[in-house]
Amino acid sequence: VVKAWAISGVDLHLELAGHRVRAGLEAALREAMQTGRLAPGTRLPSSRALAADLGIARNTVAEAYAQLGAEGWLTARQGSGTRVASTAAVSLPGPAAGIRPPLGVRAARHDLRPGSPDLSAFPRAGWLSAARKALSGAPSRALGYSDPRGRPELRTVLAAYLGRTRGVRVAPDRIVVCAGFTQGLALLCQVLPDVGVTRIAVEDYGQPRTAEALAASGLAPVMLGVDDGGAVLDKAHGAQAMLLTPAHQFPLGSVLSPRRRADAARWAAGSGGLIIEDDYDGEFRYDRQPVGALQALAPEHVIYAGTVSKTLAPGLRLGWLVLPARLTEAVASAKARSDAHTSSFEQLTLTEFITSGAYDRHVRRVRLAYRRRRDRLVAALAAHAPGVRVTGIAAGLHAVAELGPGQREEQVIAGAAARGVAIEGLGGYALRAHTRGPALVIGYATPPEHGYTTALARLVAAIRDQ
Amino acid sequence: VVKAWAISGVDLHLELAGHRVRAGLEAALREAMQTGRLAPGTRLPSSRALAADLGIARNTVAEAYAQLGAEGWLTARQGSGTRVASTAAVSLPGPAAGIRPPLGVRAARHDLRPGSPDLSAFPRAGWLSAARKALSGAPSRALGYSDPRGRPELRTVLAAYLGRTRGVRVAPDRIVVCAGFTQGLALLCQVLPDVGVTRIAVEDYGQPRTAEALAASGLAPVMLGVDDGGAVLDKAHGAQAMLLTPAHQFPLGSVLSPRRRADAARWAAGSGGLIIEDDYDGEFRYDRQPVGALQALAPEHVIYAGTVSKTLAPGLRLGWLVLPARLTEAVASAKARSDAHTSSFEQLTLTEFITSGAYDRHVRRVRLAYRRRRDRLVAALAAHAPGVRVTGIAAGLHAVAELGPGQREEQVIAGAAARGVAIEGLGGYALRAHTRGPALVIGYATPPEHGYTTALARLVAAIRDQ
Repeated sequence: VVKAWAISGVDLHLELAGHRVRAGLEAALREAMQTGRLAPGTRLPSSRALAADLGIARNTVAEAYAQLGAEGWLTARQGSGTRVASTAAVSLPGPAAGIRPPLGVRAARHDLRPGSPDLSAFPRAGWLSAARKALSGAPSRALGYSDPRGRPELRTVLAAYLGRTRGVRVAPDRIVVCAGFTQGLALLCQVLPDVGVTRIAVEDYGQPRTAEALAASGLAPVMLGVDDGGAVLDKAHGAQAMLLTPAHQFPLGSVLSPRRRADAARWAAGSGGLIIEDDYDGEFRYDRQPVGALQALAPEHVIYAGTVSKTLAPGLRLGWLVLPARLTEAVASAKARSDAHTSSFEQLTLTEFITSGAYDRHVRRVRLAYRRRRDRLVAALAAHAPGVRVTGIAAGLHAVAELGPGQREEQVIAGAAARGVAIEGLGGYALRAHTRGPALVIGYATPPEHGYTTALARLVAAIRDQ
Repeated sequence: VVKAWAISGVDLHLELAGHRVRAGLEAALREAMQTGRLAPGTRLPSSRALAADLGIARNTVAEAYAQLGAEGWLTARQGSGTRVASTAAVSLPGPAAGIRPPLGVRAARHDLRPGSPDLSAFPRAGWLSAARKALSGAPSRALGYSDPRGRPELRTVLAAYLGRTRGVRVAPDRIVVCAGFTQGLALLCQVLPDVGVTRIAVEDYGQPRTAEALAASGLAPVMLGVDDGGAVLDKAHGAQAMLLTPAHQFPLGSVLSPRRRADAARWAAGSGGLIIEDDYDGEFRYDRQPVGALQALAPEHVIYAGTVSKTLAPGLRLGWLVLPARLTEAVASAKARSDAHTSSFEQLTLTEFITSGAYDRHVRRVRLAYRRRRDRLVAALAAHAPGVRVTGIAAGLHAVAELGPGQREEQVIAGAAARGVAIEGLGGYALRAHTRGPALVIGYATPPEHGYTTALARLVAAIRDQ
């Protein structure tokens, strides 16, 4: 017999085992108190009321209450009825201490750190409309387990999109949809050692998380310098792989020069090496001619990685790897082991969002908005902090502001923090020694549109007043 | 100068580099052909039309066409204009061969394999409505990078839900939202070796993928027998961890007995061992009293794993781990490295779906439908295949049908396949030798409602006719 029993407005499903009703009631109450479903201090129904509810003898309930009172679970006081004792709670230990605050979680009033687009510009109505259309039109089987590489619909649409906008040479079969660049990199970290990669060349200014992920998987880093032509490749010869940001070096903002692109492709073809092309903000070009993906020069040697984290929102956790033939199966298998596949619901929605043209329209719209913000940043610094030189601004969502003589990153960062502005120094991205002059890495896309003017004014004040 | 140029209705963004217009046009066309953006056979505009479009001299275009003709890229024929040569395509190598057909991807006309709910019962309208409400109400920052454990809103709602429905003792801080049980297990495989687990006890009838994942991470399996009281635990003493399906043993369907539950909790407390409780279909109970989660007996030793893959759809890739305090941080870190976090959009939608009561209503509705299917299965087999004994039917979405004397799994499976019915034998789940009698594992929840009658009739015929 299972009885549903409402106490304090909460339905409690108590098991009353077979014919031993009293023992069953005791056990059920004990369990509810142990698990905290009956909190300390909770008043129990009178034995008469509960007996009526459960359809058992009042005396049985009274005996059970008495037994639990004897065990210390319940207290009975004249006029106050029977209550769960304050000592009855087997309290759950508190939360585990020391969960690292996740990188990228935002708290400051004015956030000018790089890495996030303006989340208030996310096209909610358009996305929901795409979700409705996608889910309404999907066959039932699309809601089940799917290809680890991702939905075929999305891979087909992505292949066309990447070819059209980034010059990527790709067939849908070579794409693995993944949960952002983070997962793409994690999958590659599993696969690269199996194809003989032990050393990987990385740009010596870069994302520390990325370098940590590579190191954690046992890949030894080989540091490449970075200059105005992007990564300097001559140190790569001892490595079997390279991780580059060719379209817009992160964080310095330079573009990999045509000569070095050719060199990189030649290096890969000659040595059988692999290049991971992190095209994290390839959609955002302002002044210059489009710079196509390096991948097109050597599709059998370049792993092209893209994401919607900068164009739409990081919270979607959607990205993709375009793979050389020899790696596709291994990466798909790693993906299958890792999480079977990425949510089909999100994938189908993105498919519809791209197919309908909404994605292109959104990218064009925010590109224009970000270019305006960049221009305002440059103008504000030129007007109020003329000692500062701004670089890396032809593309992307961030700029590098080289500080003037006598200024130090820490001081400016602290001054900005005192004004409610979160900002990062270039030093945080130096994977070896910070050999360049002091500079800030300014993510101008992050604040909501209405907050940008204030954020900019306070940033400029913080720089000027140091 | 960047020119947008429409050929065959496709916008092609061609780069015409600087003053060397002819060379630039040649390079742009070459690149478009190399990447397949200009397919073989495509007719190019006349030199006059293109020159007008691009605002360059007609002769420049004619010279570029002639040059590319000389190089073999283009063919010019009287009356047919200039076309991309059939040899011009630098064809992308075909898809990588050998991508494993993902487990669970469905193809048969009548699918009675276990592991998937009726996808046609997915509450599309309710889910979309929850998505709309969730996304409309979410603050912008919820669309950015988030806590690796998952959205706090969802963890709070899950803690209450799991306490209420499964008796799980949990605080929101101890939950890590993940992409289904597959990812939950993958994260544990990363973490368990670091806390001293080298050997893990598993039920000797179980999911082969699970056993493979454990083995691939270097954990040595210790096999536990299974009987009518669930897993037989006495062999577990050499292991530091156990993976159990206490509520409904997969695939045999027995329930871990109260005595063994107590034994398991005592084993863990005494040895410091860990128990992974795979509660894959805990929501689906039919005849018996609810069996609460084992986790409540030893929350500091049991990792409770749940999912919406059986209640809603596997394609959502949503699940959760409820963790002992000592593991929470390590699992959250593994999750952060693996994919930062699970899609906030899906998480917020599930939060709304549970909070509104839609999830409970859906589970009740499909539970009723699946119980009816189970009853029909039992009745059909009793009527037409009386030699078959059906077990493991008090819960879940599958039953075990022990075949009659002289019947073999392979024969019945082949007979079913010939009738368009996909079915699995118990032997496929034997992780050691298949020591039990021949049996089928029948996933009666999988077919759409309108297809169940036929699926059942054909299954019965296949069994009867062997």
